[in-house]
Amino acid sequence: MLHSIQLTLPDWIPAFVEKYPAHLPDLGERMRFVLALTRKNIESQTGGPFGAAVFERASGKLVSVGVNRVMPEQVSSAHAEVMALSFAQKQLGAYDLGSAPLVEHQLVVNAQMCAMCLGAVCWSGVRDVVYSATSRDVEKITGFDEGPLPENIDSALSSRGISVTGPFLAEEGIQVLQKYVEAGGFIYNARLDRA
Amino acid sequence: MLHSIQLTLPDWIPAFVEKYPAHLPDLGERMRFVLALTRKNIESQTGGPFGAAVFERASGKLVSVGVNRVMPEQVSSAHAEVMALSFAQKQLGAYDLGSAPLVEHQLVVNAQMCAMCLGAVCWSGVRDVVYSATSRDVEKITGFDEGPLPENIDSALSSRGISVTGPFLAEEGIQVLQKYVEAGGFIYNARLDRA
Repeated sequence: MLHSIQLTLPDWIPAFVEKYPAHLPDLGERMRFVLALTRKNIESQTGGPFGAAVFERASGKLVSVGVNRVMPEQVSSAHAEVMALSFAQKQLGAYDLGSAPLVEHQLVVNAQMCAMCLGAVCWSGVRDVVYSATSRDVEKITGFDEGPLPENIDSALSSRGISVTGPFLAEEGIQVLQKYVEAGGFIYNARLDRA
Repeated sequence: MLHSIQLTLPDWIPAFVEKYPAHLPDLGERMRFVLALTRKNIESQTGGPFGAAVFERASGKLVSVGVNRVMPEQVSSAHAEVMALSFAQKQLGAYDLGSAPLVEHQLVVNAQMCAMCLGAVCWSGVRDVVYSATSRDVEKITGFDEGPLPENIDSALSSRGISVTGPFLAEEGIQVLQKYVEAGGFIYNARLDRA
């Protein structure tokens, strides 16, 4: 039996990140960074059509990135949000990204969360979430199951003191999802072969 | 920025597992194994009061174990279920534990899932979940927030073809949670210091 496991980002990530400034003060810039990250994950065939990044909320300093790695890592919880949040936490040595003495952190993601990631965001300590496409867009365009979500996803966050902005630059986010489908991207819902 | 992260089980795990037979055919044996695992995680102060294991459903062969590692690993998604499922998937090289040619897998856990783990179970491919204490027990006894759960947790699973058994040996599961609280175990909800 394994005693530890490793979760790894694609090889192209460092060169991709290097092309951007260390701080992205504008929210539009942050989202376009995440959408470019998602597109690159699709083009490189290094995971599903989802990307996320953790920023320092006020300064826009990039803390971590995450992309969907379910199939390459063979781990079903390796969604972009879980990757970005876990990498930020490991880097800062803090399971609570909202605890003193840390500054407030923000998660920017190309699409509203699935049921698992909604919970993961609640436990992460981020104070702010920004998404582009909605969960309904994801289900409609890609066919990915979003899971047992509460009726109002955003209020599940805001009631826990996490502010939410979205749909933000939704048209661009929707285009990225459509690109994945048009490219013949695999929809990897669990147990499709047993449906 | 980090390029990969590692998630590690406590050092006592191999010796603990070695004391048990490789197969636990009886469901009561499987749950008592998981409750003992959880107790050991509390006593060893190697994480929160949650334990889980993945078994081959029919044979009872132990595939992987997981315990809550949020604080030691500084990763808020390192819940027992996510650990056990991820370790099983890495070991078998399959993000979908329900896909051919694999046999069916079962997740046994000391308590009903939080919102994140409910989603994680949906995506994991396990065909069967068995829990001891309920999410309400967890919230009532420990004060841990269980997150934005649907009204009927079990039907969210069963509607996806995942069968659910629980509360099972609930009294023993409740005792384990009480033990954690009595021992002064830390309740690490995100941003307690900002509440």
